[in-house]
Amino acid sequence: MSSKGEATRPDAKATCSIATTLEVVGEKWTPLILREAFAGSTKFSEFREALPVASDVLSDRLRTLVDAGVLERQPYREDGARERFSYHLTESGRELLPVLGALMQWGNAHRPPELGGYSAYVHASDATPLKVAFVTDSDEPVDIAEVRVRRRREALAESQVG
Amino acid sequence: MSSKGEATRPDAKATCSIATTLEVVGEKWTPLILREAFAGSTKFSEFREALPVASDVLSDRLRTLVDAGVLERQPYREDGARERFSYHLTESGRELLPVLGALMQWGNAHRPPELGGYSAYVHASDATPLKVAFVTDSDEPVDIAEVRVRRRREALAESQVG
Repeated sequence: MSSKGEATRPDAKATCSIATTLEVVGEKWTPLILREAFAGSTKFSEFREALPVASDVLSDRLRTLVDAGVLERQPYREDGARERFSYHLTESGRELLPVLGALMQWGNAHRPPELGGYSAYVHASDATPLKVAFVTDSDEPVDIAEVRVRRRREALAESQVG
Repeated sequence: MSSKGEATRPDAKATCSIATTLEVVGEKWTPLILREAFAGSTKFSEFREALPVASDVLSDRLRTLVDAGVLERQPYREDGARERFSYHLTESGRELLPVLGALMQWGNAHRPPELGGYSAYVHASDATPLKVAFVTDSDEPVDIAEVRVRRRREALAESQVG
């Protein structure tokens, strides 16, 4: 995100991992493109079919995701056609799934889609619905009320002490 | 998100909770405004000080969040000043914290901020770092590789059978 108003202040993305992530996934359509990638779409035509997005915008977003290492391109060729590229989630791309899960969870609770029915993330083995939650390092669930932010300046102060 | 290209296709937000959530939080600056709200900012001046965002953009984003029920306005008056409004997270607003936690987690892992040090969400009681993860209804953690999407059309088909 570019600085507006105060040129002397560091850019948000120089100090904040939320901002650096939004540089990759924060543009319009990108989360929905990732939603489709997680659902199994790999070809340009599949993304186009699933989303009412203009071709040039889709191309631009896929390029951003490839450049960021979230998707990787693989060449393929269908009978009689020229070589094309398909798009596949990398490991770091798959690690974005909690972002989508958290967005979907909030929408399902507070903004259910007007046409009814909704997608959900479920367990692959038994299709039971899953939640996205904060957990400790030892996987104990933590209520949102128990979560606080440790600001960057606190982290830096601690690292100078340690 | 508005439909581009194919007017006969339902809008993404008519069928998808990720899209409906992005209508509320998907605009530039909004996740960072929410980040500040979670960190304790309530006054317009505090948001302005924390973020290099233009005043008119900040006003617009705060209005969107109030209209969506994510923030609520409360009047306050400082000595000798006119009445102003402060902005406070509602319960549905606080439920957006996993979205921010997931964005921050990915950025800390894959896009650490260039000025070093980073914020993190930690446990209020002992300041130990927290993760954002998929869990079952009984709070068992689930690896990302075990997560699949149940598409809306599957959900609708099930509801017609049931």
